[in-house]
Amino acid sequence: MHAPRKEIVYLDNNATTRVAPEVFEAMVPFLTEYYGNPSSAYSFGKRVEGHLIEARKQVAGLLGCTAKEIIFTSCGTESDNAAIWSALQTTGKKHIVTTQVEHSALMNQTDWLEKNGYGVTRLPVAADGTLSLADVENAIRDDTAIVSIMWANNETGVIFPVEEIATIVKNKRLKLEKADPANKGKGPFFHTDAVQTPGKIDLRNVEKSDIDFLSMSGHKLHAPKGVGVLYVKKRTKIVPYVIGGGQERGKRGGTENVASIVGLGRAAELALANMGDEQNRIRALRDRFENTLLERLPNLYINGKRDQRLPNTSNIAFDFVEAEAVLMRLDAVGICASSGSACTTGSLDPSHVLSAMGMTPARARSCVRFSFSHYNTDADIDYALQVIPPMIEQLRAMSPLNADHPDNFNYDVEAAREREEKGMAETMAAINE
Amino acid sequence: MHAPRKEIVYLDNNATTRVAPEVFEAMVPFLTEYYGNPSSAYSFGKRVEGHLIEARKQVAGLLGCTAKEIIFTSCGTESDNAAIWSALQTTGKKHIVTTQVEHSALMNQTDWLEKNGYGVTRLPVAADGTLSLADVENAIRDDTAIVSIMWANNETGVIFPVEEIATIVKNKRLKLEKADPANKGKGPFFHTDAVQTPGKIDLRNVEKSDIDFLSMSGHKLHAPKGVGVLYVKKRTKIVPYVIGGGQERGKRGGTENVASIVGLGRAAELALANMGDEQNRIRALRDRFENTLLERLPNLYINGKRDQRLPNTSNIAFDFVEAEAVLMRLDAVGICASSGSACTTGSLDPSHVLSAMGMTPARARSCVRFSFSHYNTDADIDYALQVIPPMIEQLRAMSPLNADHPDNFNYDVEAAREREEKGMAETMAAINE
Repeated sequence: MHAPRKEIVYLDNNATTRVAPEVFEAMVPFLTEYYGNPSSAYSFGKRVEGHLIEARKQVAGLLGCTAKEIIFTSCGTESDNAAIWSALQTTGKKHIVTTQVEHSALMNQTDWLEKNGYGVTRLPVAADGTLSLADVENAIRDDTAIVSIMWANNETGVIFPVEEIATIVKNKRLKLEKADPANKGKGPFFHTDAVQTPGKIDLRNVEKSDIDFLSMSGHKLHAPKGVGVLYVKKRTKIVPYVIGGGQERGKRGGTENVASIVGLGRAAELALANMGDEQNRIRALRDRFENTLLERLPNLYINGKRDQRLPNTSNIAFDFVEAEAVLMRLDAVGICASSGSACTTGSLDPSHVLSAMGMTPARARSCVRFSFSHYNTDADIDYALQVIPPMIEQLRAMSPLNADHPDNFNYDVEAAREREEKGMAETMAAINE
Repeated sequence: MHAPRKEIVYLDNNATTRVAPEVFEAMVPFLTEYYGNPSSAYSFGKRVEGHLIEARKQVAGLLGCTAKEIIFTSCGTESDNAAIWSALQTTGKKHIVTTQVEHSALMNQTDWLEKNGYGVTRLPVAADGTLSLADVENAIRDDTAIVSIMWANNETGVIFPVEEIATIVKNKRLKLEKADPANKGKGPFFHTDAVQTPGKIDLRNVEKSDIDFLSMSGHKLHAPKGVGVLYVKKRTKIVPYVIGGGQERGKRGGTENVASIVGLGRAAELALANMGDEQNRIRALRDRFENTLLERLPNLYINGKRDQRLPNTSNIAFDFVEAEAVLMRLDAVGICASSGSACTTGSLDPSHVLSAMGMTPARARSCVRFSFSHYNTDADIDYALQVIPPMIEQLRAMSPLNADHPDNFNYDVEAAREREEKGMAETMAAINE
């Protein structure tokens, strides 16, 4: 029997991350004595501006780019929106290429644009979550304003070859410019939602790559929620999305979120420092977690191409059980994990990412995402591995799906809810035996 | 001679404000142990969501409205942008009525819209900064989507009768709907940038008023930078401006800036608590400041209708001197004040607000804004009143403008800069005599 745990085991680091203590420490002065407006002319404001300049350099270090290419925004979603909107405005074109597995920011914006007269091509993915470069190339049209493809998927961790894609897009642009110099500045451009990558993938080649726009979000890399970044390659035109004062060199209005920007700068430094050995440690935790579960439980599948994933992400199908039932029980024993993205929590539809991978609704509803970070330890994994197998076995034992193939499962939400409530006590008993 | 001051005297509270210690304290847990994503299904996320719900109620208390009418944004600028954009989308109309004295958020957005096929009517103001209600009424057309007029001016503190204006707009809307039921939902709507008002004006009648949209900004009321509010009256349609996940009930995407939202909730409570007596105290400080300067110095003018201003704002023309020279010297003795808005700092153009009031460029360039807050004391005012008169006298003594009426002044930026550098030491000597 387990002693009750006081601390949670947080395995949902793709949803959000703990603010690093060093980041919090860097922020405190700007939430207390250094409250000046960085746009003010007096020294009390200029001093604050100096710290913004420093933070911009720190973030630029993560992308191997110059500080001038960094625009601070309020979140990854705003960065995504801004890149797409700007490309549509500056090119005057009305077609967008993206994928079926993007984050809801991109998905919902492109849905809205489609309803408002824009054309959107959404590329499919293979069963292992990978993308065909030929599909990308074929989808780009003369009237394409922007190609927007995420760097790594938030649900499965599958990494797309965005640098290669960026080159395909650039070659198309150069071809159009060569055919007619009037096409200069008219795209297509390439944007990537890289929200899940900083600190997990080395991004220091971004400046040398053909990526035109890149989005990041502070709270995915141990900075606070409410701050993001839009990288815009130099000489690429940008129309501001939040239009106001001259902040961010006229590229993003609104008084700067000073404390969070300073925190993000520090988080970028920490992410760089934790790139090599630390990512290998996290990858080893993840692999041990997956391999042990595969040994212990039948009818279990790792989603996404295993050797083309972020080192921290594990998305697992537990056939014959419902993810919601698993998550509720994990919550009861202090483990945080999720099904799909936090941004789509509450939806009863199966994950659009897993559906795009051709998964049946029943299996998609059995999938749980575990995502690890710098703050996870071997003890966290030990605890999760101790808890999960009996939990799954117990759930399967009482599952009405057990006899059937999940593909035949006719999902009944109400009945499932009732089963869950009834079975909760039994599961807890099984775990604590 | 003054002893060197260790602490600054911050008289620029319309640019930004000190984060209240109570606000900081409320934020800390969400920048440390409670880092869960409020959209997550597990209890570690739900607990955070509970605090967001509480903050929403606290902010609603400031406006006398329901929590459902509050949308959290990243800043006042985003709130302004979102209100205008949404009204243009939902009405399908292409005309906007605003004033010549709005904040740069509104100004630059409407400039952009005008360049992109929208019609914009910018109402003038009188010499005392006030607005004619007849002008507003006459400017509204059948194809007007939205009327956007600030509640109180950030530079002069002049208050506009926005509740009356809102009723004018609503009556126009009802008239159009009566003429043709197909006009239902097609506006015009009324938006007010109320960024400068919380805690200074009682806003608890907003819900009962005919205001459809209202913008606020956290950092103007002792919450941190990087968080704002858009109030949207119930049953008023809103199209999200930042499009992403289902946050803010689908009305504003992006993971919530939890710590700052919680801080803003606490700041809203404090603002309400400091409404009555405390605003009278601040008004008395401001009035003593102005009256003493008027007694001590000739050729000095208070800008804006004196009895129709925010209690904390003082915008003063010091004829024959340049505001930049005054501000540089104030900075040197630890006093923070400004000319115009922090969002337009660095511009050499005279303030658009003062210009709209019919002021000559020379006088507009002599104006300094002092803005007070809860944290200002009698001692701050004593110090400012000790420092400013000799500073102005000394600047005037060496001013080449002294003999001339400022209206005749042919502004030479380079010469002014040289004079300033030369005169700086002399001023400091005069102050310290």
